[in-house]
Amino acid sequence: MSPPQTAIPQGAEILCIGTELLLGEITNTNAQYLAAELAKLGIPHYYQTVVGDNEARIHHALEVACNRSRLILITGGLGPTPDDLTHAALASFFGVEMVEHPQVWEEIRQKYGQRGMEPSPSNRKQAFLPQGATVLPNPVGSACGLIWQPRPDLHILTFPGVPREMQQMWQETAVPYLRSLGWGQEVFYSRVLRYWGIPESTLAERVGSLLAGENPTVAPYASQGEVRLRVTGRAPTREAAEAVEQILQVSGEDYFGSDEATLASVVGELLLQRGQTLAVAESCTGGLLGQLVTGIPGSSRYFVGGIVAYDNRIKEQLLRVDPETLRQHGAVSEPVAAQMALGAKQVLGSDWALSITGIAGPEGGTSTKPVGLVYLGLADPEGKVEVHEYRFGSLRGREGVRWWSAQTALDCLRRRLLHYPLSGGSTSARPNP
Amino acid sequence: MSPPQTAIPQGAEILCIGTELLLGEITNTNAQYLAAELAKLGIPHYYQTVVGDNEARIHHALEVACNRSRLILITGGLGPTPDDLTHAALASFFGVEMVEHPQVWEEIRQKYGQRGMEPSPSNRKQAFLPQGATVLPNPVGSACGLIWQPRPDLHILTFPGVPREMQQMWQETAVPYLRSLGWGQEVFYSRVLRYWGIPESTLAERVGSLLAGENPTVAPYASQGEVRLRVTGRAPTREAAEAVEQILQVSGEDYFGSDEATLASVVGELLLQRGQTLAVAESCTGGLLGQLVTGIPGSSRYFVGGIVAYDNRIKEQLLRVDPETLRQHGAVSEPVAAQMALGAKQVLGSDWALSITGIAGPEGGTSTKPVGLVYLGLADPEGKVEVHEYRFGSLRGREGVRWWSAQTALDCLRRRLLHYPLSGGSTSARPNP
Repeated sequence: MSPPQTAIPQGAEILCIGTELLLGEITNTNAQYLAAELAKLGIPHYYQTVVGDNEARIHHALEVACNRSRLILITGGLGPTPDDLTHAALASFFGVEMVEHPQVWEEIRQKYGQRGMEPSPSNRKQAFLPQGATVLPNPVGSACGLIWQPRPDLHILTFPGVPREMQQMWQETAVPYLRSLGWGQEVFYSRVLRYWGIPESTLAERVGSLLAGENPTVAPYASQGEVRLRVTGRAPTREAAEAVEQILQVSGEDYFGSDEATLASVVGELLLQRGQTLAVAESCTGGLLGQLVTGIPGSSRYFVGGIVAYDNRIKEQLLRVDPETLRQHGAVSEPVAAQMALGAKQVLGSDWALSITGIAGPEGGTSTKPVGLVYLGLADPEGKVEVHEYRFGSLRGREGVRWWSAQTALDCLRRRLLHYPLSGGSTSARPNP
Repeated sequence: MSPPQTAIPQGAEILCIGTELLLGEITNTNAQYLAAELAKLGIPHYYQTVVGDNEARIHHALEVACNRSRLILITGGLGPTPDDLTHAALASFFGVEMVEHPQVWEEIRQKYGQRGMEPSPSNRKQAFLPQGATVLPNPVGSACGLIWQPRPDLHILTFPGVPREMQQMWQETAVPYLRSLGWGQEVFYSRVLRYWGIPESTLAERVGSLLAGENPTVAPYASQGEVRLRVTGRAPTREAAEAVEQILQVSGEDYFGSDEATLASVVGELLLQRGQTLAVAESCTGGLLGQLVTGIPGSSRYFVGGIVAYDNRIKEQLLRVDPETLRQHGAVSEPVAAQMALGAKQVLGSDWALSITGIAGPEGGTSTKPVGLVYLGLADPEGKVEVHEYRFGSLRGREGVRWWSAQTALDCLRRRLLHYPLSGGSTSARPNP
C-alpha cells in the first residue's frame, strides 16, 4: 500500500462537486482549506477543479484528473438527495457496483436516534459505496466519505461539502491515512510568519537571498494588509529552523506572530502576561474592533467591554467627549479620538483603551477630511494618550477602511505592549473572573 | 462576431491562475464573483479550474478548457513580476507572438505619474499582448486584460487577480462585450429571494411544483442560516415575475428581501420608514451586531450606538443591570437579557434596543447552560421588553454561535417592525444629523 514513487511528482488534485459553486452561491473555502493542508504536508498540488452535480461532467472531470494526478480529494455530493451523485458517479466511472455498508446505515440510524428522529429512506443511499472502497467515517453528520485505490497508482478520498464535517474527517482519518502511505513525510518544518505594517516588497528586501532558496523555501504573500512568509523545509536538517531564526532577526516589530496567530490573539496574550485589561471606543468601525478582540476564546480574562459611539450624543454622554471639542474639530479629529480613548478607559475601568473615529465612506468625505481618514487613540495605564492619523483612502471600500482601522488599532496596542514592563500589573478594577 | 450557435450549450469556464491559490493562501472569491455574474447573465458555466504560475500546467489547463468550453474567463498572472505568465502562456499555447501596445505603456506611465512615481522597467511587459488580442482596459491598476478570439468558436477574456480591479473591468467592459456577442440576452429575469428562520425543506414544500419548472427555474440554497431562492426566467414572458409573485404569497414573514438585501439593510429601511432609532447591548457577540448594523452606508441615520458589556461590571454600571439579578440568574439568562435591552434603550436614548447574552464557547458551557444557549432581548419604543431563548448548539463553533445570534436578533427586530405602525415616529431623542 505504499505509494508508487511516481505518485509524489504528479501530485494531488482537489475536485469540488456542487452546482451551488457554479452558481456562485458559496465561496469555495473547502478548496482553500485542503490546499493549505496539502502545503503543510508538503504534498505537491497542481490543479483544482469545480464541477456541478451532473454525472457526465463529473466523469469528464475524473478523466482529466486521473490522467494528471495521483491523489484526488473530492468534496461535495454525498448527501441523501437525488442530486448528490459523487459516489455513484465514481462507481460508474470505474465500472464497479455500489455495495451497501450495513454498519454505516446503522450509524446513521443511531445519529438520528440520538435526536429522537428516524432517518428518511433516502438516507439509506448514503450507506452505499463503490465496490472496493472503504469507509471514511464522518463523526458528525450522516454523510460518510470513502478511501479508495481504484488503480495501483491512484488514491481517491471523498468528503462531504459541509466544511466542519470535511475538516474533522480530514484531520482524524485522511491525514493519518496519507502519512501511513508515506505522503507528507518529507516536510519536517512548516511555519507561517505574520507581519503587519510593512509592505511585501520591503519585507522581501530584508529577507533577501533566502527567497531564492530551494530548501527551505521562503515564500511571501500579502493579503488585506497582512504580509506572510511561509517557510517550508523538506529534509531532516536544521536549515529551515535556522532560516526562521535569520528572518526573525531582521524582522523587527513588524513581525507579530506565527502560524495561527492574529493581531487580536497576540494582543490578548500580551495583556494576559501583564495582567492588564482593555476597553474600546468605536465610531466608524461600529463594533468590529470589539468583535475581533472577543473572537479569541477566553478574551473575557482581559477584555472588559466597549462603547460604540456612532452618534455624537453618545460620544458626549457616555465617553465624556467635550461638546465644544466636537463642535470645533468635528467627530473625526485628533482631540476627539484622544478623548474617546480616555473616556473609554475611565468609564469602562480598564488599563488600556483603544478608540477609532474615521470616515468609512462611501459618503461623508470632504476635501480636508476625505473618505479613509481615521484617527486611532490609545490610552495607556498611566492615563497618557497617543493619537495616530491614517489615510486608508477610498479604494478599499467601506469594509476595507473599517478592517484596516480595527487591525491597525490592535497593532498600535501590540507595539506599545511589547515595550510595557511585565511587572506593570493592573492599575484599575479587575474584571469578574 | 456573433457567437456560433454551439457556443452557448458548451458554456463558459473560469480559469484562475495563481500559486497562492494552490497553497491555500487566499480564498478564491474571484471564481465565486464571476460564477454569480455568469448565472445572472444566464451564460451556462460547467467548470472551474485553478492552476499555478507554471507555463506547462497553464498550457495543460488551456488544452482541457478549450476542448469543453467556448468562453474562458481567466483571472490572475497579469502583474509585472517573472511569475506572472498568463498572457505569455496564452501566446505560446496558440502559437502567436507577443505584441506591444504602446498606449497601454503610456497609460501605465500616466498612472504612476499621478502618484509622482515612475513605473519600473518590469512594468513594460504589461503592455505586451498575444498577437490578435485587444486590450481589456483596467481603469484602476497597471495590469490590463485582453479580449481575444483565437479560434472562431472560442472567446478568451483575462482579468487581474485583484478582486476590485477584476470586478470593475468585468462590469465596464466584459459584460457589454459579451452582450454585444449575443450572450446573456436570454435571461430576462433574475432574482434572489432571501429568507431567515425557515428550514430549506419547509420552504421547498411551500413553493412546491415551482421547483420542478424549467422556465422559470426556481433553485433553493441554504447558507449560514439564510435560505435563498434564485428565480431565473429565460424568455420574454411574464412567467418569472408571476412565479415570484406566487412564491411571495406563500412566503410569509420568513422572506426578508431580495437580491442584495441583508437583514441589517432591511432593518435599516424599516427604521428609516418609521423615523426611529436603534441601540444595541452585546455580550457574547462582542460588537458583531453593531458591526452588521453599521456595515450599511448611511446607518448613522438610525443607529445611535452600542455597549459591549463583556464584563458583568459593565452590565451593572453602564447598562444598569441589577447585581442581584446577575447573582441569582447568571449573566446568560432571560432577566439579564431583558434588563440589558431596557438599559441600552434608556442609556443610549433610542426607540428600539436589542440585547444579546449567551455562551459562544468553546469553553464556559454547563449542563443547564450549554454552549450555544443565547438570550435575545428587544425593547420597543413603549419600553416593553420581550426575550427569546435560542439553543444554537456547539457544532457551529464560536463564530457560528455569534453569527446566528446577531442575525437572529436583527430578524426579531425586523418582524416586530413589520407590525409597527409607520406613523409611530420617534419617541426619544433624535440623533445628530
